[in-house]
Amino acid sequence: MGKRAGILGVTGFAGRELLSIIGRHPGLELAFGASESYAGKPFSQVYPDPVDLTMVAPDKAPLAEADLVFLCTPHGASAQWAVKALDAGCQVVDLSADFRLRDLPTYERWYAPHPAPHLLPEAVYGLTELTRDAVRGARLVANPGCYPTSVLIPLQPLLSDGALDGAGIIVDSKSGTSGAGASPTTKTHFMSVHDNFSAYALGHAHRHVPEMEQELSAYAGAPVHVTFSPHLLPVARGILSTIYLHLAESWTAERVTALWRDAYRGEPFVQVMPSAEPPSLAHVVRSNRIAMSAGETGIPGQIVIVSVLDNLVKGASGQAVQNANLMLGFAETDGLL
Amino acid sequence: MGKRAGILGVTGFAGRELLSIIGRHPGLELAFGASESYAGKPFSQVYPDPVDLTMVAPDKAPLAEADLVFLCTPHGASAQWAVKALDAGCQVVDLSADFRLRDLPTYERWYAPHPAPHLLPEAVYGLTELTRDAVRGARLVANPGCYPTSVLIPLQPLLSDGALDGAGIIVDSKSGTSGAGASPTTKTHFMSVHDNFSAYALGHAHRHVPEMEQELSAYAGAPVHVTFSPHLLPVARGILSTIYLHLAESWTAERVTALWRDAYRGEPFVQVMPSAEPPSLAHVVRSNRIAMSAGETGIPGQIVIVSVLDNLVKGASGQAVQNANLMLGFAETDGLL
Amino acid sequence: MGKRAGILGVTGFAGRELLSIIGRHPGLELAFGASESYAGKPFSQVYPDPVDLTMVAPDKAPLAEADLVFLCTPHGASAQWAVKALDAGCQVVDLSADFRLRDLPTYERWYAPHPAPHLLPEAVYGLTELTRDAVRGARLVANPGCYPTSVLIPLQPLLSDGALDGAGIIVDSKSGTSGAGASPTTKTHFMSVHDNFSAYALGHAHRHVPEMEQELSAYAGAPVHVTFSPHLLPVARGILSTIYLHLAESWTAERVTALWRDAYRGEPFVQVMPSAEPPSLAHVVRSNRIAMSAGETGIPGQIVIVSVLDNLVKGASGQAVQNANLMLGFAETDGLL
Amino acid sequence: MGKRAGILGVTGFAGRELLSIIGRHPGLELAFGASESYAGKPFSQVYPDPVDLTMVAPDKAPLAEADLVFLCTPHGASAQWAVKALDAGCQVVDLSADFRLRDLPTYERWYAPHPAPHLLPEAVYGLTELTRDAVRGARLVANPGCYPTSVLIPLQPLLSDGALDGAGIIVDSKSGTSGAGASPTTKTHFMSVHDNFSAYALGHAHRHVPEMEQELSAYAGAPVHVTFSPHLLPVARGILSTIYLHLAESWTAERVTALWRDAYRGEPFVQVMPSAEPPSLAHVVRSNRIAMSAGETGIPGQIVIVSVLDNLVKGASGQAVQNANLMLGFAETDGLL
Repeated sequence: MGKRAGILGVTGFAGRELLSIIGRHPGLELAFGASESYAGKPFSQVYPDPVDLTMVAPDKAPLAEADLVFLCTPHGASAQWAVKALDAGCQVVDLSADFRLRDLPTYERWYAPHPAPHLLPEAVYGLTELTRDAVRGARLVANPGCYPTSVLIPLQPLLSDGALDGAGIIVDSKSGTSGAGASPTTKTHFMSVHDNFSAYALGHAHRHVPEMEQELSAYAGAPVHVTFSPHLLPVARGILSTIYLHLAESWTAERVTALWRDAYRGEPFVQVMPSAEPPSLAHVVRSNRIAMSAGETGIPGQIVIVSVLDNLVKGASGQAVQNANLMLGFAETDGLL
Repeated sequence: MGKRAGILGVTGFAGRELLSIIGRHPGLELAFGASESYAGKPFSQVYPDPVDLTMVAPDKAPLAEADLVFLCTPHGASAQWAVKALDAGCQVVDLSADFRLRDLPTYERWYAPHPAPHLLPEAVYGLTELTRDAVRGARLVANPGCYPTSVLIPLQPLLSDGALDGAGIIVDSKSGTSGAGASPTTKTHFMSVHDNFSAYALGHAHRHVPEMEQELSAYAGAPVHVTFSPHLLPVARGILSTIYLHLAESWTAERVTALWRDAYRGEPFVQVMPSAEPPSLAHVVRSNRIAMSAGETGIPGQIVIVSVLDNLVKGASGQAVQNANLMLGFAETDGLL
Repeated sequence: MGKRAGILGVTGFAGRELLSIIGRHPGLELAFGASESYAGKPFSQVYPDPVDLTMVAPDKAPLAEADLVFLCTPHGASAQWAVKALDAGCQVVDLSADFRLRDLPTYERWYAPHPAPHLLPEAVYGLTELTRDAVRGARLVANPGCYPTSVLIPLQPLLSDGALDGAGIIVDSKSGTSGAGASPTTKTHFMSVHDNFSAYALGHAHRHVPEMEQELSAYAGAPVHVTFSPHLLPVARGILSTIYLHLAESWTAERVTALWRDAYRGEPFVQVMPSAEPPSLAHVVRSNRIAMSAGETGIPGQIVIVSVLDNLVKGASGQAVQNANLMLGFAETDGLL
Repeated sequence: MGKRAGILGVTGFAGRELLSIIGRHPGLELAFGASESYAGKPFSQVYPDPVDLTMVAPDKAPLAEADLVFLCTPHGASAQWAVKALDAGCQVVDLSADFRLRDLPTYERWYAPHPAPHLLPEAVYGLTELTRDAVRGARLVANPGCYPTSVLIPLQPLLSDGALDGAGIIVDSKSGTSGAGASPTTKTHFMSVHDNFSAYALGHAHRHVPEMEQELSAYAGAPVHVTFSPHLLPVARGILSTIYLHLAESWTAERVTALWRDAYRGEPFVQVMPSAEPPSLAHVVRSNRIAMSAGETGIPGQIVIVSVLDNLVKGASGQAVQNANLMLGFAETDGLL
């Protein structure tokens, strides 16, 4: 008994990835793919994928024909589309930041006035492994950011366990260029990225900071500060986060690994690696998995964690389908293995 | 009045880069290029560079014809060649680790029994900007490691100033693949590196750790611990180090920048960038410069530094020639601008 | 009703790709994966793929447990394994060159003495779209070379139609680095391939030449000479062949396109593109499709064809499974969509 | 006795490369760098190069202060700037196509109405090795296209010798992405180019075709047709052209090589390689050299040539300075070795 999903903003990288996952999904069918700039044109004009789709203008998107809508629209726009889609009776998975921050002033400080603050209380933060039950019954799911997913999955068991000693966590993340979006700019020109590597939004300036701090503080039951430095890699896909934190002195890499194995036992998309074998991007690219390992630094209690995921899959569209699967009654792994 | 330099281990990436610099040098001429594996063969069989050189076996290298010898040989071998070259009356710049660590037990713990410990007291650590006077009169210079150069130049002014609050420094470094050496292995296969990114020797395991700790502790006048995580980038050349440290609360990024501008005023190879414009690899690749910027993290006194250099130039052969220029009486910038 | 397949030579790139396809296949299960160098070790020690496999030594491979064996062994070795596997009652798909050339002297001129010439008459050349019926009943299938597949599919309809005017065809091919094999050598070192591009085995020297000439001559019913120049691309996967040929003057790009659409109507893995939109590698990488387009050159009858495929899928393991599907009674597309 | 050069269109890749060459030139100094979009801004805002330059608006460019002006402006604009610069008493090297085609109707068929046809008779085609004497006395030099340079240097000695048998030449060229220009577009987005490879303007459609045919026909003394297929490589710089042609049957690769060695004896920027060692991009990138080799194809008289150059150096700004050196009385190699 199939379900139908629509995509708003289908020509970005997340929309493209959703199309590809839905194409492999045993129960989900495409209701529509909407694009502002390419309405009326075939998808093959934008990407070389063999997808047979003529895009519609967002205004003309037949929301009523979809059971669920994926919003791949920019923040601000997403909240407005969420209102319309919910009104049309659709469930919604929003891949933008519009419903990730529970605190309205925080959202408005980092982004802009919120177009639909009345929906904030209802929105469920869809980090599937950690909020599965809430996602299952949700009308509106806020799909987590790519960087936060790479940080929250490894840290939640530790912070919930009260292991963190002091509030400071340092996250040094490196992302592939698909994370910078499909718009052609000087920064995404091949000649700027290829054979190069750069840092940006260093320290505490990236918009994923408040999202990480919100969730980590909730895990820890106390405010947690995240020092965050993203970098741009000359690769297509993937995030590798190197995370430094201080735990009580009795914590070793081995104990962290054991805690993870326990916390994520049976999870199909969480791969705990041995200390000596930190995962590389190649471990996870084009999969919905996150892989992680813990190491030591010579300072008792200081732990260095490496986590990797594909920013377009577990960091965006894969997790979005994982959430949609729960919302629509499919097996959580449908379309994702 | 020209001088002549020989290169032992000319077919590695550092040797190749030296050849190229010497080719542009107004006063330095090549005495010989020695290679174990390619003796008797033309250099063009190894690299596509238009260099007219027939390599000699190391045993046959005419040491006596050289004023100075660059050792691009592996640690262990370098120390033995240093003895021979000094005996032959040459000055020596060693690009291996053999003379970087002043403490014999430390060397032997991280490497192997030292073949020439009697030379350790004489060897000068050639981080040119900081040890210029000692280099000028030296017979034997230990050329610094690539990662340490990227860390010591930005940190020396701060640590000498007593700014460091607590002993912990975190260095998250990313290096191009030339840093992994010219030997073909599974790890350096194009298919392993391309479109990938990985961490290795995490925490406190890389052999450049004791070198960094030795120098930083000397600057600070007290033991400094370095948590160090190197990563492998899918680019040819360049190191970007992201460095996290705690200073007294009164320190801001602006004050760090001002201190650097003062400390490195007039230095042709040190480029201090504004906080808001962290340098990328493209700022320094194929130059002998190191570029760096300081930023803040939202925690008073916590500073994040980004430094970049070309691992084969300022991180190896460029700095080696910078040192040789001083040793031989050339202008420090000869061949390097 | 499942079938079981074994892989000999599972740690090359073709073996790795087979593992991945078999993992998605609805009816095919892995009987064993054999490796000379890694016997007894887990596959995860060689590649980052999440495959749970302990490799066996080829000698210990339980051939009797497999319905079909894929030979990813080098030429020479493959023929010997084919004998053993057939004796054990397996069907065989050989991905090496051992059974591609029907003429023994030609094989021995380009390769070496043939270890099992008695099997040559039985072997079926498995260019699936063109030899489907013979593959269906075969015990032993010679899987075509990657370059030849990119040339034969576009040219067969033309040559069978007698369109070729004169015997000369020029094939200028560009292949990703996976085509150069998994052995680490100076040529496959990241530093040799990255940001570089080179030609090799120019003119008429590559071992895929006799394979192309054999098949093209059979299509044309007369000897066809192929001028062939392969090049090495700094990409992971994919072949793009630019093919120049002279047809009778009445042939236009449009007519070629129409002939192809007719010849390959309904073929799931052949994608005919319009003249104005030549396919790029991105059209086919990670798929079992070949895509192609025809254009004109200003000289009446001279046609330029661009064809693309993934050298590890349609050019090797994908086509191998396509053949195996027919041999074992599966749907031809099983595991490949 | 120094000279001063101005650059119009300094923020494109050719302008950037000119800046870098002039920075190394012993006698040439920068008079101004003009940019439409970045007037009043520092060059460091556009590129990470350590160049101290504030750009001027083209209208405000102090033409009178320059002895020579390099035009890195688009075709159409270049011709208009040439008029102004000549009027101001400057010599001019135009890197656009405006003065490459001697025949006005041909120019207007491939481009647009010509803004200054009266200058066509005076313009000298600056393929330096072949038109050295004319360049020396020229006021206005048309710098050749990147692809044509890679084709004309290897073919001129053969065609002048009457060796070509029949009019057809096939040129299969592959260019790095800097050749596609600095404007950010979907086609130059990192995600479109990286790990990809594509053909464009196939057959006879690229604007460099009439330039090649004009020169080759002049060498041969008869019309020569060029079938030309350019491709886009995922590398920063470099063109590799694989050229197929039929000579009289007595011609071998060895004889072609001998002819070249003779024709280009003593040329500092032409490197003739042995048949067995076709040059790769790495042989010439970041140099002003062109390297080339000849091979055979099994068909008597059919020759396959591989030529390589850096599209931004010998293919643009290097050759422009080589021409300017002659025009201004410098040594031809000044700034280029």
